[in-house]
Amino acid sequence: MSWKPTLPQWPILQWGREIDRQGLADDALAGVIVAVMIIPQSLAYALLAGLPAQAGLYASIVPLVLYALLGSSRVLAVGPVAVVSLMTAAAVGEFAQAGTAHYAEVALALALLSGLMLTVMGLLRLGFIANFLSHPVISGFITASGLLIAASQIKTLVGVQAGGHNLPEMLTSVLAKWEQVHGLTLAVGLATLAFLFAVRSRLKPLLRAWGLSPRAADLLSKLGPVAAIVVTTSAAAVYDWHAQGMKTVGAIPPGLPPFTFPTWDLALWGQLAMPALLISIVGFVESVSVGQTLAAKRRERVDPDQELVALGAANLGAAFTGGFPVTGGFSRSVVNFDAGARTQLASLITAAGILLATLLFTPALFHLPQATLAATIVVAVLSLVDYKILARTWRYSRPDFMALMATLVMTLLQGVETGLVVGVALSLALYLWRTSQPHIAEVGLVPGTEHFRNVQRHQVLTVPQLVSLRMDESLYFANARAIEDRINQAVARQPALRHVVLQCSAINDIDASALESLEAIDERLRDAGLQLHLSEVKGPVMDRLQRSDFLEQLSGRVFLTHYQAVQALTPELTAAAAPHTGA
Amino acid sequence: MSWKPTLPQWPILQWGREIDRQGLADDALAGVIVAVMIIPQSLAYALLAGLPAQAGLYASIVPLVLYALLGSSRVLAVGPVAVVSLMTAAAVGEFAQAGTAHYAEVALALALLSGLMLTVMGLLRLGFIANFLSHPVISGFITASGLLIAASQIKTLVGVQAGGHNLPEMLTSVLAKWEQVHGLTLAVGLATLAFLFAVRSRLKPLLRAWGLSPRAADLLSKLGPVAAIVVTTSAAAVYDWHAQGMKTVGAIPPGLPPFTFPTWDLALWGQLAMPALLISIVGFVESVSVGQTLAAKRRERVDPDQELVALGAANLGAAFTGGFPVTGGFSRSVVNFDAGARTQLASLITAAGILLATLLFTPALFHLPQATLAATIVVAVLSLVDYKILARTWRYSRPDFMALMATLVMTLLQGVETGLVVGVALSLALYLWRTSQPHIAEVGLVPGTEHFRNVQRHQVLTVPQLVSLRMDESLYFANARAIEDRINQAVARQPALRHVVLQCSAINDIDASALESLEAIDERLRDAGLQLHLSEVKGPVMDRLQRSDFLEQLSGRVFLTHYQAVQALTPELTAAAAPHTGA
Repeated sequence: MSWKPTLPQWPILQWGREIDRQGLADDALAGVIVAVMIIPQSLAYALLAGLPAQAGLYASIVPLVLYALLGSSRVLAVGPVAVVSLMTAAAVGEFAQAGTAHYAEVALALALLSGLMLTVMGLLRLGFIANFLSHPVISGFITASGLLIAASQIKTLVGVQAGGHNLPEMLTSVLAKWEQVHGLTLAVGLATLAFLFAVRSRLKPLLRAWGLSPRAADLLSKLGPVAAIVVTTSAAAVYDWHAQGMKTVGAIPPGLPPFTFPTWDLALWGQLAMPALLISIVGFVESVSVGQTLAAKRRERVDPDQELVALGAANLGAAFTGGFPVTGGFSRSVVNFDAGARTQLASLITAAGILLATLLFTPALFHLPQATLAATIVVAVLSLVDYKILARTWRYSRPDFMALMATLVMTLLQGVETGLVVGVALSLALYLWRTSQPHIAEVGLVPGTEHFRNVQRHQVLTVPQLVSLRMDESLYFANARAIEDRINQAVARQPALRHVVLQCSAINDIDASALESLEAIDERLRDAGLQLHLSEVKGPVMDRLQRSDFLEQLSGRVFLTHYQAVQALTPELTAAAAPHTGA
Repeated sequence: MSWKPTLPQWPILQWGREIDRQGLADDALAGVIVAVMIIPQSLAYALLAGLPAQAGLYASIVPLVLYALLGSSRVLAVGPVAVVSLMTAAAVGEFAQAGTAHYAEVALALALLSGLMLTVMGLLRLGFIANFLSHPVISGFITASGLLIAASQIKTLVGVQAGGHNLPEMLTSVLAKWEQVHGLTLAVGLATLAFLFAVRSRLKPLLRAWGLSPRAADLLSKLGPVAAIVVTTSAAAVYDWHAQGMKTVGAIPPGLPPFTFPTWDLALWGQLAMPALLISIVGFVESVSVGQTLAAKRRERVDPDQELVALGAANLGAAFTGGFPVTGGFSRSVVNFDAGARTQLASLITAAGILLATLLFTPALFHLPQATLAATIVVAVLSLVDYKILARTWRYSRPDFMALMATLVMTLLQGVETGLVVGVALSLALYLWRTSQPHIAEVGLVPGTEHFRNVQRHQVLTVPQLVSLRMDESLYFANARAIEDRINQAVARQPALRHVVLQCSAINDIDASALESLEAIDERLRDAGLQLHLSEVKGPVMDRLQRSDFLEQLSGRVFLTHYQAVQALTPELTAAAAPHTGA
């Protein structure tokens, strides 16, 4: 029940010393490859978040540098990611109209709050909060987010104005404007989609057939979006599609990321607190799981508390330089790793590359069709959708399946925040419900051993004077009554009963409510002429019981092993079951 | 995960057949004694709830009859009780001014909602919801309620108008009007208090010394409030204290309880839902615990689901006959039991007695000083205050103590609803926090046995090639990461390690998140050239694991007992530890 705050560490002091010539070359290559990949992604996710395209570039410079200095993963690439951008759009859309200056201000406040929360959670070692997001809830949420993001891009692919923060809203909002579909935009969007799907499924085998190494083929096929952007942007510039009514990225002011000071509006902060918390936790979970997966491949370690501090600093950086909430991204980190990055130096080089692009190349992005970016988003997020997990979870555990489905359906129908909150609440409620209905087994002696197993599942020995009950749950307030009921039932069933022995091997704790129940049980058994005994009580549980007067009052005894209890109370049973060694 | 709805039963058909001449006499005597005791109590609790005195009488007629027909306890006495009346005042006070007709309407709506909720919970067998109210939360809440009720009576004892729904509000509100204290009222109030405390502490021994039986002495000393009322009412009538500004009960319209139809205001119902739920659960918990305590003394049974239906019917009865929320009361049920009640016929006789009083004797109550009633309340509720539980809970369990104190302090400072909600939320959060930080013990073989215990607590045998870990918690999403960390640690510590054996005797469930963690652990161990084994996996857990492909993928094996695992994997250890029988 105690934890200590942690002080920020500077992992750069560690890896900074290890860089040699070869490492520098590896990191430089990886950093450039990631920069090329990240530029279109960051533009696309800024649009997904409802912000001007340059916000994506700004969010990919200072945050990367801060994570590089503080992060404990050597290869994690931080920046705008799909799910967090969707959550940002949902949260900010509650308070401002997309495209307005106020909208950008609210997004900065969200990044600031998220940064503060992550930093504080890290310093107070509260990373365990993320453990309450169960895998089924995350699976349901990520799959639903992928579908929501894809649906949100339909409007851009067909060139109409539409909105909505859940699936029905998005679909009806686009369908209502179906007659305004812009033919040229639709054509470019569909062509890009077809190209990207083809690259995804065909290019890699083709490159392998041409003799490229698997890694090179993999990396090259991930540059498909960059090729699509170059081609469609050139075509748009040559044929001046912008003048024909196609939405393009438009004018981006070249220059350094601006210094922005997030609005000091406490009422707004209060209303943003819940979405900021959800964004922080989802971002943290996504980031840490990517980081740990990649670290394990090289036998490195990722420290979750340090990650919280580093991601917090990255978001604070985004808040003060015109960005929006960021986190460690899956696909870019994998590219970074596969491209040979050894340290966060690669991220520093990526940040330098994006800064260079922001200073020099933004005019080249004027003609980039928004439909092209939408197509890259759709192809990227459909990989988040995982249908197989549904069948697998259904087979393994109904409660987990319920939590998964509730999160999935509620996210699609009610949006990201409701979906996530319902999922977490339901998974906690199902856990509490299950532990409040404990499995209690009557056990008997396995002949020839000192071991006891469930009488309903195994051929075991019992005697009518003694009942052995194994509680398969810690005893706490929610299940104290169930245990009373079960013992009453056992007593009512066996008239010859003299001893009730509770095998406590699965009891990890007995809280004050359960202690009162045990006292009541003991008193009732004593009144009826029976004795209550305990066996295999664990150390921590015994320590606690000794702080009450329960053990002094207990009608029976406490035995180290269940076998010793049965041997002492009903020797005839253990004699009958003894192994015939040397006899 | 499944439960069946229940159909209402009619326990009266059972006990109705058993009544004989002697039983009839016993029930009649108990019924009359309880009626005499209940009349002042019901007036007092109506005033505590902010309602006119007659509402207390009405709430003690039809609800008693309905409970008598449906309740599974033979001696429970239903009616207005202190804590529920306090909660009623807090809930209704949010929407109406005490003393107005609208206030009474809201109280009826509260009784109706509470009645509906209890009935539905009973029919759907949802009584387990009450299990989530832990003993420490109940203790803290009841003690705080006792203090709050006592504080709420100060204004009546000193004869000023004041209000407030928490301790600071009540005290400042009375202190602000200190100069308006009514001397005569204060004198009567203090004299009654002194008399009642004296009766409580001295009368019983005195009566015993005069030769009365313990039971008779006990019952007679409980009629102290009735004596106080008779004396002060007579004095008030003779000296016309009412004309001197003393508040008395005043004119009560004689006659049958009115037929009242609770307001059909869905917006109000929505706002009352939460307080109605809390009142229902608190009332149910109080009532069932009294009922079960008394039933156990006579080896009878109380059925919680049937109790829900019966209490629901009683509250619906209150809602349609000018009452307010009711439940089974502790002191009146004990009096009923001690006076010899055998069946609910006693309650029917009590109801008839109160009906008679309502028809005939209400003019006699005109001069009854409200200060006298306040004094009876104060003396009654101070028995709810239990300081000893604080020290006992502190010694036994810090988390339980935290839940108790949080409930106590929040109830005093923020009122009954906040206090209860905070207490329940905190006790659940503490439980989840604790299970998310599992105790994981490394175990070794106890020489001469087949038993394994914690290496840090016992003299046990281990070998460097094998580590035995016992998880003292079910594996679920909130603790899956802790287990990964612990195994990684063990592997890092022991370079000679070849086998990791998880002793699963305390693992009662493995959810989908934990299964994914186990798969990840197994893969990592296999990569490092180690094997993961399981032992003593429980039946239900094994059934579930077999629905996944985990067991096929597992690098190691599954053993029935931990001893067998160690014997098979490192025979040198078990040979060294074998008992020297026949050798």
